[in-house]
Amino acid sequence: MDALKDELHTAYASLNATFGDHLASQGLDNSLIDHFSECFSANVGTGKLHRGLATLYIGKQLANNEVNAEQTQQLCVLAWLVEMLGAHYLILDDIMDESTTRRGEPCWYRQPHVGLMAINDACILKSAIFFFLKKFFRQHPAYVNLVELFLDLGLHTEVGQLGDLAAAKEEDIAKFTMEKYWSIVRDKSSYSISGPVLLALEYWQLATPKNLQQTHNFAVALGEYFQVNDDYVDVYGDYAVTGKHGTDIQDNKCTWFIIEALSRANDEQRCDLLGNYGKRDSSQVDIVKRVFNELQLQEVFREYEGKQRAKIEGIIAAVDESEGLKGEIFLTLFNGFRKGRQF
Amino acid sequence: MDALKDELHTAYASLNATFGDHLASQGLDNSLIDHFSECFSANVGTGKLHRGLATLYIGKQLANNEVNAEQTQQLCVLAWLVEMLGAHYLILDDIMDESTTRRGEPCWYRQPHVGLMAINDACILKSAIFFFLKKFFRQHPAYVNLVELFLDLGLHTEVGQLGDLAAAKEEDIAKFTMEKYWSIVRDKSSYSISGPVLLALEYWQLATPKNLQQTHNFAVALGEYFQVNDDYVDVYGDYAVTGKHGTDIQDNKCTWFIIEALSRANDEQRCDLLGNYGKRDSSQVDIVKRVFNELQLQEVFREYEGKQRAKIEGIIAAVDESEGLKGEIFLTLFNGFRKGRQF
Repeated sequence: MDALKDELHTAYASLNATFGDHLASQGLDNSLIDHFSECFSANVGTGKLHRGLATLYIGKQLANNEVNAEQTQQLCVLAWLVEMLGAHYLILDDIMDESTTRRGEPCWYRQPHVGLMAINDACILKSAIFFFLKKFFRQHPAYVNLVELFLDLGLHTEVGQLGDLAAAKEEDIAKFTMEKYWSIVRDKSSYSISGPVLLALEYWQLATPKNLQQTHNFAVALGEYFQVNDDYVDVYGDYAVTGKHGTDIQDNKCTWFIIEALSRANDEQRCDLLGNYGKRDSSQVDIVKRVFNELQLQEVFREYEGKQRAKIEGIIAAVDESEGLKGEIFLTLFNGFRKGRQF
Repeated sequence: MDALKDELHTAYASLNATFGDHLASQGLDNSLIDHFSECFSANVGTGKLHRGLATLYIGKQLANNEVNAEQTQQLCVLAWLVEMLGAHYLILDDIMDESTTRRGEPCWYRQPHVGLMAINDACILKSAIFFFLKKFFRQHPAYVNLVELFLDLGLHTEVGQLGDLAAAKEEDIAKFTMEKYWSIVRDKSSYSISGPVLLALEYWQLATPKNLQQTHNFAVALGEYFQVNDDYVDVYGDYAVTGKHGTDIQDNKCTWFIIEALSRANDEQRCDLLGNYGKRDSSQVDIVKRVFNELQLQEVFREYEGKQRAKIEGIIAAVDESEGLKGEIFLTLFNGFRKGRQF
């Protein structure tokens, strides 16, 4: 994995410089080019590179033959574009959530010389994705599909985000349903899982209907597994391990736990949930957690987790590799996730 | 013009419904579809529709033959997509400028049930442009060009916005230069002028290098004329006519007037400008205006305006129509602008 990381980092410098050159060719002032370069450095590639590494790894795995230097370079570009899309959303999410820090640094919009101009910076980051696609893939037979894929990943992420934000504003949590939950999850998580696979399939022109369907099924199942686990960690995670305090209960989030709890609660417990969910007061949070415990939700969660794991393993075992997809890739993504990394 | 407006409004309802149907087909909750529909109604088509009307008008003018019902419908869709792109930026600009009202209503992000979720709404509006392009133009021979054109219009608008925002943060206004100014103007204004022309050229497959170059030259010249006029109105506009108080001086904006003033000022005047530009205090604004008057900038402006008008008229008169472009279109855009409307 370290070798992949090195490859990515080598490609990085040239990408940042390419965009800078483009801006300069547009007659842009040096101070603006420097600003954008700083925005790029501060926001792209500062995380764990899960999605970028997954893109490069899967891209290499799906190759029929040895991957040559030019192909490696192109896969690295795709990997960085995935990271740029992620950075676009993190910058905006931090503003919408009024967050203060990201990865130990002040959020981009909290930097005194940036402020709400961060919104425009985030938009440029996303627009730059398509600039790079045109620059490096205009002659690629799957160019249009790659462009549409990034546009589609964007729209799904935003629709998922809308669901998430709107749910958190819902005053009557009795309206939370599993149907609504899975629909938000599908948009929020599945696409970030399927994105790297779909890009690699398009790149090698293996995006057959069968391969797309298999990828979709796997990504939905893993996305669900992932999100429910995420909800679990938010309530029951160990701070010493996760390094963060969960706030889903305070934030009135539409989570697997609150929906399960509401569907199992007796009248008194239901009343406790409705009256105390989505409140800042820690004693009210404790009441919600007490009801969760009374309903033995950790037990219910473990049951769900076992069943979903079996389902995912079933999907992986049944992968039809006749059109170039490889079950190995799904297995790596799944195992990586279970070790707390995307792969 | 009223007939065009009617055509646009007829197409509107079906577009909004189409996107709602798409969201529903994604399993999205009704409340979210309603939210987006409200966002669409509140932000798209609430202005004067200058750009949308220009797109439809030019689209019809450039047709070789009678425009049939399907083509009219497609031109209306393009017109609305231009309006959607505009709405995307207005929503975000209002947040970045911390504005309170837009067209007499509270800004979208100031609506209590929206808040900063408006950022995500704006992103969905932009993403929806490409959803519609795919839906209505996937089979059009210029599909890829249309997609790239919208992406390109977006990037240029954002880069122009970056220039604008960064300039307003510049503490040393002595660093404002005409070069910097024209570069910001090119990105900010020219593309909103050329956008409708370029879309119509692409739609009729008339986007030859010659036609693109002529459109570019015209749009840059009119964009400059437009922006300098805009700067004029901000300082010297009559509130009874414009309905708004200019704030460029207070906002430290990089305008034609401050650059001209700095280039003509003697030491004392220069000192007054540097010490009082970009300040809220109305007595300081008055000092800046006094220096503008001492330097007879209204006179200088009228000289510039006359020269630039002649230049634009020259470009229009010289339009080479051999590849299907029509000077008539440019003339209409120019006259429309001079009557205080885009056409």
